[in-house]
Amino acid sequence: MERVLLAVGLLVALPAAADEGMWTYDAFPTETVAKTHGFTPTQAWLDKVRLGSVRLAGGCSASFVSPDGLVMTNHHCVRSCIEDLSSPKDDLLAKGFLAKTAAQERRCPKVEANQLVKMTDVTARMNAATQGLTGAAFNTALKKEMAAVESACATSTDVRCDVVTLYNGGKYHLYEYRRFQDVRLVFAPEFSMAAFGGDPDNFNFPRFGYDVSFLRVWKDDAPAKSPDYLRWAKQGAKEGDLVFVSGHPGGTERKATVAELEFQRDVNLPYTLLHLSELRGRLREYASVNPERYRTTRNRLRAVENGLKALRGRHQALADPALLAQKRQDEAALRAKVDANPQAKAATAGAWEETAKALETYRRMLPEYRMKEAGDAYPSELFSIARHLVRLADEQPKANAERLREYTEAQLPTLRQNLLRGAPITLELDELLLSFGLTRLRETLGADDPFVVAVLGREAPEALARSLVRGTKLGDAKTRQALLDGGKVAVEASKDPMLLFARKVDAEARAARKRYEDTVEAVLKRNGERIAKAHLAVYGTAGYPDATFTLRLNPGVVKGWDENGRAVSPLTTFGGAYARHTDKDPFKLPATWVKAQGKVPPQTPLDLATTNDIIGGNSGSPMVDRDGNVVGLVFDGNLHSLGGRYAYVPETHRAVAVHGDGILAALEHVYGARRVLDELRAARDHDENPY
Amino acid sequence: MERVLLAVGLLVALPAAADEGMWTYDAFPTETVAKTHGFTPTQAWLDKVRLGSVRLAGGCSASFVSPDGLVMTNHHCVRSCIEDLSSPKDDLLAKGFLAKTAAQERRCPKVEANQLVKMTDVTARMNAATQGLTGAAFNTALKKEMAAVESACATSTDVRCDVVTLYNGGKYHLYEYRRFQDVRLVFAPEFSMAAFGGDPDNFNFPRFGYDVSFLRVWKDDAPAKSPDYLRWAKQGAKEGDLVFVSGHPGGTERKATVAELEFQRDVNLPYTLLHLSELRGRLREYASVNPERYRTTRNRLRAVENGLKALRGRHQALADPALLAQKRQDEAALRAKVDANPQAKAATAGAWEETAKALETYRRMLPEYRMKEAGDAYPSELFSIARHLVRLADEQPKANAERLREYTEAQLPTLRQNLLRGAPITLELDELLLSFGLTRLRETLGADDPFVVAVLGREAPEALARSLVRGTKLGDAKTRQALLDGGKVAVEASKDPMLLFARKVDAEARAARKRYEDTVEAVLKRNGERIAKAHLAVYGTAGYPDATFTLRLNPGVVKGWDENGRAVSPLTTFGGAYARHTDKDPFKLPATWVKAQGKVPPQTPLDLATTNDIIGGNSGSPMVDRDGNVVGLVFDGNLHSLGGRYAYVPETHRAVAVHGDGILAALEHVYGARRVLDELRAARDHDENPY
Repeated sequence: MERVLLAVGLLVALPAAADEGMWTYDAFPTETVAKTHGFTPTQAWLDKVRLGSVRLAGGCSASFVSPDGLVMTNHHCVRSCIEDLSSPKDDLLAKGFLAKTAAQERRCPKVEANQLVKMTDVTARMNAATQGLTGAAFNTALKKEMAAVESACATSTDVRCDVVTLYNGGKYHLYEYRRFQDVRLVFAPEFSMAAFGGDPDNFNFPRFGYDVSFLRVWKDDAPAKSPDYLRWAKQGAKEGDLVFVSGHPGGTERKATVAELEFQRDVNLPYTLLHLSELRGRLREYASVNPERYRTTRNRLRAVENGLKALRGRHQALADPALLAQKRQDEAALRAKVDANPQAKAATAGAWEETAKALETYRRMLPEYRMKEAGDAYPSELFSIARHLVRLADEQPKANAERLREYTEAQLPTLRQNLLRGAPITLELDELLLSFGLTRLRETLGADDPFVVAVLGREAPEALARSLVRGTKLGDAKTRQALLDGGKVAVEASKDPMLLFARKVDAEARAARKRYEDTVEAVLKRNGERIAKAHLAVYGTAGYPDATFTLRLNPGVVKGWDENGRAVSPLTTFGGAYARHTDKDPFKLPATWVKAQGKVPPQTPLDLATTNDIIGGNSGSPMVDRDGNVVGLVFDGNLHSLGGRYAYVPETHRAVAVHGDGILAALEHVYGARRVLDELRAARDHDENPY
Repeated sequence: MERVLLAVGLLVALPAAADEGMWTYDAFPTETVAKTHGFTPTQAWLDKVRLGSVRLAGGCSASFVSPDGLVMTNHHCVRSCIEDLSSPKDDLLAKGFLAKTAAQERRCPKVEANQLVKMTDVTARMNAATQGLTGAAFNTALKKEMAAVESACATSTDVRCDVVTLYNGGKYHLYEYRRFQDVRLVFAPEFSMAAFGGDPDNFNFPRFGYDVSFLRVWKDDAPAKSPDYLRWAKQGAKEGDLVFVSGHPGGTERKATVAELEFQRDVNLPYTLLHLSELRGRLREYASVNPERYRTTRNRLRAVENGLKALRGRHQALADPALLAQKRQDEAALRAKVDANPQAKAATAGAWEETAKALETYRRMLPEYRMKEAGDAYPSELFSIARHLVRLADEQPKANAERLREYTEAQLPTLRQNLLRGAPITLELDELLLSFGLTRLRETLGADDPFVVAVLGREAPEALARSLVRGTKLGDAKTRQALLDGGKVAVEASKDPMLLFARKVDAEARAARKRYEDTVEAVLKRNGERIAKAHLAVYGTAGYPDATFTLRLNPGVVKGWDENGRAVSPLTTFGGAYARHTDKDPFKLPATWVKAQGKVPPQTPLDLATTNDIIGGNSGSPMVDRDGNVVGLVFDGNLHSLGGRYAYVPETHRAVAVHGDGILAALEHVYGARRVLDELRAARDHDENPY
């Protein structure tokens, strides 16, 4: 359940069902929760859980679980790190990892951890900046103001500042994070155990994955202090228990207009699904040829399969006529209320129509935009490095507010880390990916398209990919460092073929981006904001904002569901995992687990399902009890929950987590991870009741 | 542009635009054509062209072009035959084929040619049989009556009789064909030339393919006589010329209800596209490993890529809000007229609602139906043989009218030919396909689905596919013959693992089929028929029936179009083909063409675009001038034409054909195919003006 990044995602709102809602901490519906669950979180409780929550900048959630910087998250959230640390001779992804001492903890090249320390409402400032503007002017002014606010806030690289959009532009907040870039791997199980059941079991339940890992944030070459951390619960979660999930849901479109949902159903999702399906087929077949190919492909393959399954679930939700009928009804009700309110009516005049028109523009533009700018033609790591170097060289000399958003000062520390921290790139795989992308480019835009002709000339995609990937030196971190330090002069002097290629395609890419931003994004944003404000005006702020990879808190209950007349129990056990073991991948338990059979009582809970309202990005979120103590680790949702992108259905949507008891039992009896265990227990016992 | 076979395809009608219409020969709108084009085809003209038209039972069109059984069609229509005749040492698909004598002509194992000799209206008989019935009873009675009518008509294996559905059940006709099962290959160019431009150029124009082949029907081991044949035109087609296409469009849904179109857009097409995309990825990567894999995969790969592109075009047409808006308007207009006509209103009471409800049932059932019965789980040739043997053994003892439709007497000659005529099956590829299918089965229905558990047990899909494909003897034609001759006893005694597997899954497959037929197909058919009759009642029979792989005639004009402000010329030339040659696949001209450069004047037309209203299944259709003489060979449509599944757009939809002049020029100067050329010229000069 990694977060899936997609294009459009905009918005409108409704009264929330029980347990529905990805609430910001500053607007948590304490009274409603008290009424529903008989428990009232205090402000101290909220602060403690918030500060114990961690965001992994790559798209996951996590938590501090000791005062010494120990961080718990999913294995799949650090799978890329583990892969970066692996080699053919030392395959950590296959065999797992356990640091027996602090010195053995290994730095993840590209992991950044953030802790949310402050939220400030900057809506007035943003609104003032865009007052009276439309189209591209609106968009440009908004981005400039965001960059200015962020720049003023980010006083050091230890501080990360993001202006975040809430309620689809109904509000803007400045989020200030503590930033940790030295993040080290402490413990990871085997990939086969983290993802037990593989793609068939992904998003399924009953489930038997041990999708757990521990990291540690370091500072000045020593473990960092994390005084605000979550303690382990003394009592594990049982069916019917109230549990909270604190994490970073990546994105929902629950307040999207009907036109936007139809666009997703008819245009964006089918396009993306086809791309991913074919890539999946390529990667699976490619990886089947020999073990080394499998080793270097499994991470990417898993990510593709996860995205594919998630997006397919979304598409299926939108293909259900009942969902769209409900959305149409909700939109009609909102518009009726808006029409009855002269001020709101005037403020939204033409908003829905302009939105639909921009989407029609986007429909015609999407293949070009996705190919030229969004990177579908170049799904190569080496190309991506080259593009960043080329663009950074062009953007950095500009004033901060004039830059493309991803090159503003606030973004640079993360970007620099990604560019400079060297992890090996597999040339053969990168070549396959680029070859796939260039083939798709030609077939999507057509062999006679002038851009395609300029890119390919008389060359075949496979041969061009080969010469670029085999010819570039960008796989070498020192080369990248030199180009980064050398700036525009160095980049323009370079004869590196991938860099030359990235420069060659950049003008067209930027032009496509500009057309998209000016005629699609700007119109959708501005009208989304207008509709959102009208919504706030007629319904008030009782609702929660759509997810935007910002910290949210959600209450839920440990509970199964009824699957077409079959009752699904909310808890699975170690015994169940052994019963599911067929000794054939992906239902093959690793040797450690086979060996440990019998050491853990078979009834010990392994995974659990809850009614929490989660979505991709929530992976790694701590699940806490009413004492704010850890009882689980969210790592997935069930298949139904994939429709949660658009609406939460309390009867069937379920979050899936590793059970707190199961986490400890396996650390102790399967992995002998005494050091982690002792640290968790010491933290738990240190300070009995901090709230 | 092979015909793509898909599930649902039903129907409603509108006034036809100029050149729109796939007309049956017995209802050709002679007056309209006379008015539009100033040319009135006589009955003799219509009979001659009809009898000169040929259907290839596998899903293509063709024509007789000499009195001695010479048949012209596309290369891609006989690609499977050419592959069947190829071996690693004698790769006819790569190098092409030319029979220098009659004795050198090589029999295509599985090609069947049909010539339509008689059409009889049997609507009254069908209606009487289904009078007052609904649901499964309606469906069963209809199928039984069809089988009875066909059985009475098919007096020998030389006669093929099909009851065909026209106007979505508004009418039923009995089509009687002369059947030829001894069909031999006479000439084929190289695959690389037939499909020049490969997947990127498929459905594109300007186009430079030489998608041509010649076959001959034989009878009693001698070339058959074909007194009704089409002559070659003395004058080639020029821009603006009136041309007719006589062929077998496979299927359109122009009269489908809005609910059916939405079902295609939201459910059926996305499902199928995802399946094909992933398969494409698998096959491309698989084929890239070595030349032998490429050789044995290219035909299947091309078919998959063609289907994918065709279906993507359909999906994109349905994703255009304008198309659905028009369809909604048309449907509302029809329903208003029906409501104003008390008889029609009573006859269609609930018809649209029942259709929508059946589609909702189908939406929930589709994955199961497609996996268990429709073969998505078993895209293996060996499995397909096994299933036919198992089912034939069960069905043949039953009365003809009680059998599954594909095992009725009228179908058996074609089926027997397909089962018995031995062409080599590539085990490695078949294993890949079955492994892919079983993997999809598990992920589609879920690892815990009882059927999946029964099929896979504790085995991995790859391993099960391997043991079935490597263990079966069904690749051997003699084994198949013995099982076919031995009937139920032999099949039940067999220990062949693939046969055992096909038996094991058959009960569930049949059950899924029955659920689909009773609750979906039956309801759609009956209500489709009711709506179609109401349509005929309120609009009359001025329209043409949706395509059903039955013979149709369509008028058109040689004409380019405007592509976003860029004029596309309707003719391409030999010079253009040489200019497009990059020497890199798929833009690599074969050695014969490279060698012949200069021998054919560069301005000689190679391909052309026309306004003819065509669709998959029309491949291989003769294009004739107002004298009924051949001026081209249809092999494709442009990208726009893919939306022709749902509506014909005269401004942009174009048929794509090989130009008559180009066909002759290459036969003479590139291939030195004197024997074919002499036969064509002799036929042309034999009898100056037969009409």
